[in-house]
Amino acid sequence: MSLISVGTMAFDAIETPFGKTDRIIGGSATYVAYAASNFVKPILQVSIVGGDFPKEEMAELKRRGVQLEGVEVVKDKKSFFWSGKYHLDMNTRDTLQTDLNVLLDFNPVLPESYQGAEFLMLGNLDPVIQRKVIEQLKQRPKLIVMDTMNFWMEAAMPELEKTLKLVDVLMINDSEARQLSAQFSLVKAAKAILKMGPKYLIIKKGEHGALLFYGDQVFFAPALPLEEVFDPTGAGDTFAGGFVGHLARSGDISFDNMKRGIIVGSAMASYCVEKFGPERLKEITKEDIEIRIQQFVDLVNFDIELV
Amino acid sequence: MSLISVGTMAFDAIETPFGKTDRIIGGSATYVAYAASNFVKPILQVSIVGGDFPKEEMAELKRRGVQLEGVEVVKDKKSFFWSGKYHLDMNTRDTLQTDLNVLLDFNPVLPESYQGAEFLMLGNLDPVIQRKVIEQLKQRPKLIVMDTMNFWMEAAMPELEKTLKLVDVLMINDSEARQLSAQFSLVKAAKAILKMGPKYLIIKKGEHGALLFYGDQVFFAPALPLEEVFDPTGAGDTFAGGFVGHLARSGDISFDNMKRGIIVGSAMASYCVEKFGPERLKEITKEDIEIRIQQFVDLVNFDIELV
Repeated sequence: MSLISVGTMAFDAIETPFGKTDRIIGGSATYVAYAASNFVKPILQVSIVGGDFPKEEMAELKRRGVQLEGVEVVKDKKSFFWSGKYHLDMNTRDTLQTDLNVLLDFNPVLPESYQGAEFLMLGNLDPVIQRKVIEQLKQRPKLIVMDTMNFWMEAAMPELEKTLKLVDVLMINDSEARQLSAQFSLVKAAKAILKMGPKYLIIKKGEHGALLFYGDQVFFAPALPLEEVFDPTGAGDTFAGGFVGHLARSGDISFDNMKRGIIVGSAMASYCVEKFGPERLKEITKEDIEIRIQQFVDLVNFDIELV
Repeated sequence: MSLISVGTMAFDAIETPFGKTDRIIGGSATYVAYAASNFVKPILQVSIVGGDFPKEEMAELKRRGVQLEGVEVVKDKKSFFWSGKYHLDMNTRDTLQTDLNVLLDFNPVLPESYQGAEFLMLGNLDPVIQRKVIEQLKQRPKLIVMDTMNFWMEAAMPELEKTLKLVDVLMINDSEARQLSAQFSLVKAAKAILKMGPKYLIIKKGEHGALLFYGDQVFFAPALPLEEVFDPTGAGDTFAGGFVGHLARSGDISFDNMKRGIIVGSAMASYCVEKFGPERLKEITKEDIEIRIQQFVDLVNFDIELV
């Protein structure tokens, strides 16, 4: 099965209580690709970068089965840049700088070779752009997964609502779910959001795990309790990459398999936060992933006889 | 198996975003008794109340198998009173009033008939009082579970440290675990606290579930995602009552059975928050408890083949 992944490929500069980086590789589609490429090939990447984006990074992605035909390179411009600083709790951060650069011109044109892909991952972007990608597909994918953020709820709600009607799985964090639904209770928020289009809703709660809602069913997966969270940047996109990568590998989009996808995504995210940027994701092997998935099994596994 | 439960029996006045009560029944040992009495009899209660504590409440507890010989009644004084107001997120609250009243004179004397109990639940109290109860037991119980709070870490740390050395299971919330250990990471906090005496540590994270640490092992149970949390008062004590009640019923203090105890405690707590005070706990049946435990099984249950 093939997977189209649409999103940013960018530079980040990150400051956490544990350290500081200059410009390192970032971007939602970068993290999705590094996570998903452990499970599925090809990944059909759709993004835009400037002439400053390192050729070695492109080569490394290619080596992992990521096709770059849909990545526009604007030679005389700069890649998207974000810098931020995390607070001591690592759950909240301040944006220090956002330079959209090439992202201002992002108008993705799907290469003909991408047609027929069964899975589509729409990273957080302007909902108009997300919709344009869907509309270019001659055959609807088996599953469309979408990420978004509070910014679009404030700046482009009518457009966001249109795009939501076209997707199968929405993936947002808890505060975004509350904002989108105007409900404080996440159960009520989920009910409201599932009426807006998506059949499945994943609410990410960072260190507090993730919830999957489908009809009246709900599944919960914790985050792995870690000794250190070094840098949370990209954890959500890595989670998305592991989730959709697992689904695309198996071709099974049942609720039960989505549960497994959430565990796989959580395992990948737990590696992502161990080092700056996607560095740790580049190091890990299939065995590492298996070990961590087993830790999730042990973490929540119990056997109960009803009382 | 019998269970000694030591703690307050009191009045609370509660204000939440959803409603307000005048003086209603509260107190840690009250919640523990209502929860644990679904699983084990007798519960050997140790507490102190004033002449104002309702006889009907005493009768109701007795009917549920709670022995009250160890509950001192000071006729001409008032019961402990607490009032508080919850913020919109229901996770934080302000204390409006604390009248210690009879609690100032609390110096529990264990009735002879309580000797030989296999389980001891020490509700949040002055660690000196908690230790005095342990010291009165001629035979060490099979399991001693202890609750405490930040107040004692600030006001009586040396006494708290002494008591911690005598217990098997410590049960505190996440911010208390951080305070007690001076570690932000809960994994590091747990490692530090397990060196202070307890063999098992339960960290309660409210709506984000609970963690059980034992040696290098860790188990996580989520809280049930609820549409409404009406009043969180007593949820922690109800969790403790369900946990220790389950262990006392089975007599099994293995790590695996503690996992089950955490699920039972979480199920009981999920009922507690549905109404003011212990009201909902008085209504539920064994069938209700079974239904909710099954919901926990469904919530976290997944079946994964390693990738």
